[in-house]
Parts: sequence; structure tokens; C-alpha cells
Amino acid sequence: MAAPSTSRPASGTDSAATGAPAGGGPNTDPALTAPTPTADLAGRLQRLGNELATAGLDTVVIGPGADLAYFVGHSVSSHERLTCLVVTPDGTGKLLVPSLERPGWNGSGAEQLGLEIATWLDGEDPYAALAALLPESARMLGVDYYLPAMHALGLRAAVPGSELALAGEAIAELRMRKDPAELAALTAVAAANDRVQRRIGEWLLPGRTEREVAADIAAALVAEGHQAADFVIVASGPNGASPHHEASDRVLREGDPVVVDIGGPSPAGYNSDCTRTYVVGAPTEEFAEVHRIVQQAQQAGVQAARAGAGCAAVDAASRQVIVDAGYGDYFITRTGHGIGLEVHEHPYLVRGNDRELEPGMAFSVEPGIYLPGKFGVRIEDIVVIDADGVGQRLNHAPTELVSVGGAKP
Amino acid sequence: MAAPSTSRPASGTDSAATGAPAGGGPNTDPALTAPTPTADLAGRLQRLGNELATAGLDTVVIGPGADLAYFVGHSVSSHERLTCLVVTPDGTGKLLVPSLERPGWNGSGAEQLGLEIATWLDGEDPYAALAALLPESARMLGVDYYLPAMHALGLRAAVPGSELALAGEAIAELRMRKDPAELAALTAVAAANDRVQRRIGEWLLPGRTEREVAADIAAALVAEGHQAADFVIVASGPNGASPHHEASDRVLREGDPVVVDIGGPSPAGYNSDCTRTYVVGAPTEEFAEVHRIVQQAQQAGVQAARAGAGCAAVDAASRQVIVDAGYGDYFITRTGHGIGLEVHEHPYLVRGNDRELEPGMAFSVEPGIYLPGKFGVRIEDIVVIDADGVGQRLNHAPTELVSVGGAKP
Repeated sequence: MAAPSTSRPASGTDSAATGAPAGGGPNTDPALTAPTPTADLAGRLQRLGNELATAGLDTVVIGPGADLAYFVGHSVSSHERLTCLVVTPDGTGKLLVPSLERPGWNGSGAEQLGLEIATWLDGEDPYAALAALLPESARMLGVDYYLPAMHALGLRAAVPGSELALAGEAIAELRMRKDPAELAALTAVAAANDRVQRRIGEWLLPGRTEREVAADIAAALVAEGHQAADFVIVASGPNGASPHHEASDRVLREGDPVVVDIGGPSPAGYNSDCTRTYVVGAPTEEFAEVHRIVQQAQQAGVQAARAGAGCAAVDAASRQVIVDAGYGDYFITRTGHGIGLEVHEHPYLVRGNDRELEPGMAFSVEPGIYLPGKFGVRIEDIVVIDADGVGQRLNHAPTELVSVGGAKP
Repeated sequence: MAAPSTSRPASGTDSAATGAPAGGGPNTDPALTAPTPTADLAGRLQRLGNELATAGLDTVVIGPGADLAYFVGHSVSSHERLTCLVVTPDGTGKLLVPSLERPGWNGSGAEQLGLEIATWLDGEDPYAALAALLPESARMLGVDYYLPAMHALGLRAAVPGSELALAGEAIAELRMRKDPAELAALTAVAAANDRVQRRIGEWLLPGRTEREVAADIAAALVAEGHQAADFVIVASGPNGASPHHEASDRVLREGDPVVVDIGGPSPAGYNSDCTRTYVVGAPTEEFAEVHRIVQQAQQAGVQAARAGAGCAAVDAASRQVIVDAGYGDYFITRTGHGIGLEVHEHPYLVRGNDRELEPGMAFSVEPGIYLPGKFGVRIEDIVVIDADGVGQRLNHAPTELVSVGGAKP
């Protein structure tokens, strides 16, 4: 029966019920679990309504995922059965869910908001049920970024004369600017990630495989306050040259550089994402030099991250350090991505993105140098633009080169 | 940095490298890990090409997920960066991937097939890169069911005069009919699930919470040969009346009915999904009666599942037993769903679906009765239509009522 679960943040409301581990340690920070107050959810719906009017959309349809959790404090696994939120420019929200999943919405933000919750039965046409929830005159239909094509095209077919457009940008206008509770949530989960990075010496030892190390880190992420370990990259030696390498059976050896890029959601659904590059024992001169360059590039990116700076300018600030050092061809990614209910969201720190940073924006700064066949170095912190317009790191594990399991560098 | 992982099956090729647990036990069945031979992948691309011609599509664009894994033996986490396979009616496939993820495709089925693998860099327009891979005259663009709206609409905008259509049905025509290796994979992972259901008495005990039981079951699914536990529903007492309840802090009590619906992918990516409803100690008369009815309904569904029977007829066969017993209003779901690289896929056993079953089709048969405020009962087996056209159960844990942790029923 069961629908496959997804790694998208499910819900503040729900997850808070799960609760943090018992006890009085730092991983019981209430910001890890606090659900979004109903009044805040109501404000978000109203602001989305305003955005829709600006964007020229008659309505928006939002499927399961972070967007849904953002507006109604709850989401579900995404699968072939249609679940969606309809929002109109006046800020009214209506929810459509499969009958068999209606009990899962009991007590949710959607109920607390007093939204109409319509249901459809297996064997009925969900798109007809959806069309019945739309304003009669709605033709310009916005959809969220991740609505499956199946549902988007089903919607279009059910509303004669309609046209689909992305509402993702309009939604991102809200989600990009974190409120104080969201910033507290990101701060708490970043601290949980830091606690894991600081313990790396317990697991990152010569003779162990990347996979063994990754399993220990995954358990530690949960023990330190994450709801789950969403990704655990342990990329040693030449594997580090592949930015999205995960973890293999390669055995760690004396002298190996190791990229450790880890994170996941808090019980409240806000994500951590932090990278450090370590060395097992003593580093080679080349690696120590590349590590210093990346550390300087990361520092330059953080310093450039201020209110009014363009996203592309932050990317350029980090990149220039690497280009000047002669490694420009080996920095093969953008400099960063927004973070919140998703690990990757707006704003993206990438060339061509002229969006200006504002207070409340949260994003990674993570330049890297990737040398095929040799090694990779990446250093990543989450940075938030504070009320004074200054970029503040949320991660505080040292960015200096740390040696594990052997001689000091 | 890292993209969030998804629960969609990643890859035969990849996962096989992970390997099953060492040792000579039943969970080392090679069918749990065997990747799809390259020749089979080539045949699938050719058949998809033929289907496209029939469907009037000039080309199809397939994003990350089970469809991608089906055709090229590998997939990736789905996120904002575009990865996709383009297939044209002549059966030619081309792949587009982000530059930084190109190393992850080394040695994959896509390389073994000799597909062109194009890349795009952060900051470039991925939709322009995609459009460049399409035949110049392509206007009717098919997309897979789960391609995010963001990518589908980005594609449409990059090809002036183009129109989007679902290619999901054309793809399902292939995926619905499992080849012998796929049936062996489903048989092996069903057996792994059976081994867990047969051990249920180790964990399902009065005084424990649903969540504690679920954690043990999740570990056992992996220990018995799954790649991961994708879903673990432990729904006791009144929680069982919600078909998609997962697991809560409710403590199991003497007399509780408990729905246990569990499954996940094998390392090769093929899924198990099996439900049994147990009782802690002695059952009430009402529960024992409802369990008997559901067992009969499930048996009726399995018997109706034969080549040439319509999907709706199988649903009706199960449903009639429950309607005749006076519980028709409490069977609130369809009777079943196809299964393979996804937990839910075509064919769906639901009213209105006249699709006829054929040899090689694999699906669940899982009627249930859900009594709000009281309990639920669901019994689910995976069934395959064999070469003689007869429905054969892949699950063999007993469907009779099993009592755990107390007096026998």
C-alpha cells in the first residue's frame, strides 16, 4: 500500500510531535522542533496572494514538498495520487487530498488555518476535483517548481483554455526572506552540524572505508539533533575531485585529503549543510596550498555577502581568489545556494544572477578546487544577512586545515 | 553543497556495486543485486522509440527517477539542476547532465550504451543545452510523469512552437511488462520482505511504541536484503483506520489489532510491499470477523487476477466480498497498484481501469476495511501474472490471523 517516503521536509507540525531526544543537551534546542505558528502561516498565504496578483496569475497550485510545508505547516510523500494546495490572489487557500490520507491532516496547520479541505476517492478524477476548487474565471494557472508534469498537464487539461506558468519565483520571493523563527531554526541546525564536524576525528581514521565513516556520521547527525541525515559525502583522495561523490568502499590512507559535506533537516524541517576538507595525517605541500586558497576564497565570499550585493558579485568575489591563484578552471560549480526548508533553494550565488541580497536571506558560501585524479577541496558555511545587512556565518567549526588520525599538519 | 537524496530507486548499476551483505544466507540471492544487462537497456530504448512513434511524439524528455534508471541503468537525486535523457522515435538516446555530476556517470549503463552525454555548467542555461539535443523539427515533446514543472516549462519555453504532452503512458507500456530478470528481482525482494513479516513476533510486543517497533522492522528490512526501508507503517488500534498512518508514540496494548505495511527497494532497485494485520494477544470477535472478510476478499482478488481480466474486474472481485459482508463503505482505497522500480506504478487495480492484465505484470492485491475510531485490517501480497496467464503470489507469509506477544487467537 504505502507510498514511498521522500526526503523533502514533511512538516513542522508533524515533526515537532516527533520531538527531539529527551535530556537537557544542546540538541534539545527548541528551535530544532518548533512548528510555525498558525498566525505566521496565515500571513504567508496572504503575501503569496499579493505576489500572485503582481505576477499576473489567477491562481497557484502547489503540490507536496517544501512549498506546501511552508504554507500549511505540513506535507506528505509525493506520489501518483494528487495532493495540492490552491491559493488565489485574495490569499484564500484550499486543500485537495486523497480521501485515504485525510486523517493525516488532522490537527495540521491547514486545519488550524480553517482551510477548506476537499477530498477525492480512488477511481475518481482528481483533476476534475481540483478544477472545482479554482475560481471559475481562472485561466493563468501558476504551479510550483516541483509539481510533477503528470499533475501539471492533468490540471491544464481539466481547465479548458488555461495556460500553465511557473509560480515558483513568486513563492521564492517569500521563502527567500526568512523570518526570525526561521533564522533561529537554521542557526540551531547549523550548530548541530558543527557538533558533528567537530567530532570528525572519532570516525575519520586510516584503514576505514568512506562508507563506514559515512554511516557513523549519519548516526551522529541524528544524535546531535537532526531529524535525518539527508546526505553524507565522504570523498577521499581522487574521489574529492567529484563534487557530488557520495561514499564508496575506498579505504582511507595516510596523507589522504577528505571532503566531508554533510547535512539534513531538523525535526522542524530546516536544513543544515556544511563542508570541511580534512587530511589524514600530514598533508602534501600542494594540498596544503590549495586548501589555503579555498579558505581565502571562502572568506572573500563571506565578506562580500552583504545587503545590496548581487548574488553574482559574491560568486565573483570567491572566484577571483581562485582565478588569481591559477586554479580558475578547477572551480567548476557556482559559489552557493539558498537554504531553508530545502537544502537548495533561492537565492543562488551564480554568475548571471543579479538578485540583490537582503536581510534575512540564508545561503551557502562554498567555493572549491577540484583536481581530477588528485583530490578536491571545498569549504562551506551557511551565511545569513543580518538586520544590519552584514553576512554572518552560522557554522563555526574551524575552516583551517584539520588533520585527523595521524601527524599534525 | 550536496543535493538532497531521494527515495526513488537510484540505479541497478550503482546499487549493485554496494552489494548485498556478505555471507551465504538467502539475502545474498544474486537477483537482489543484479544490474540490468546493457543489451536489455538497448532493447528498452528501441521499444520506447517505437512507442513514441505510435503516440505521435517527436521526442521524449525523462528526468531523474525510476524511468531514467529503467532506460540507462542509473539515476541521480532529483533537484534544481537539470539532468535528463532525450529519446527519439528511432530509439536514439542522449543524456544531459550537470558538469559537476558527470563523474557519477562513469561506467554507467549510459556509457556502456555509448550514449552521447552532454554537460552544462552552473550559470549556463540548461534548457538551451537541452533544446540543442532535440531533433530540429521536434515540436510534440513528451515528458515523463514526474518531470518537475520547472523543467517541463523550461523545455517548452526553449523550443518555440512546441507543445508538452505526457509520455508517461508510453513509458508505462514498457515498464508494466516485466522481463524474466525483473520478475526474479521482484521475487527475491518479496522473499526478503516475507522473512521480516515472519519475524514480527520479535518486535511487536505489548508495552512498546509503534515507533520502536518500526525502527526494528526498518533495520530488519535492510538486514534481510533490502537496500533501504522505504516505508514502515505500524498502525495499532484506531490508527489502523488511517491507511497511510505511519508510526507514532502510541503504546501497543493487549488486544490491539496492528496493521504492518512495509517495504523498500532491493540494491538493484526493485521494490517489495507487503501488509499483514496482526493482533496483540487475543482478538475481539469483531476484529477476527473483519480479518476473515479481508482475507477472503484478498483471496478473491488474487483468484481474479489472470491474463485477460481487466484491472477494474480484479478490484471488483475483492470489493464484492467486502460489500456482501456489509463493509463496502469502509473499503476506501483501490485494490492495488503495479510495482517494480517504483512502489506505485502501472497497472492500477481501480474502478474505471479497463486495461487487461498480461503475463509479466506485477501488482499488489490489498483490500482493506477501515473502521474509524476502532481499527483497520489490510492484507497485501504482490502478484505476478505468469506465462500461463495465472496470477501467482510472490509473498508467502501466512495471511491467516497471527497473534503476537500473548495468548493465541
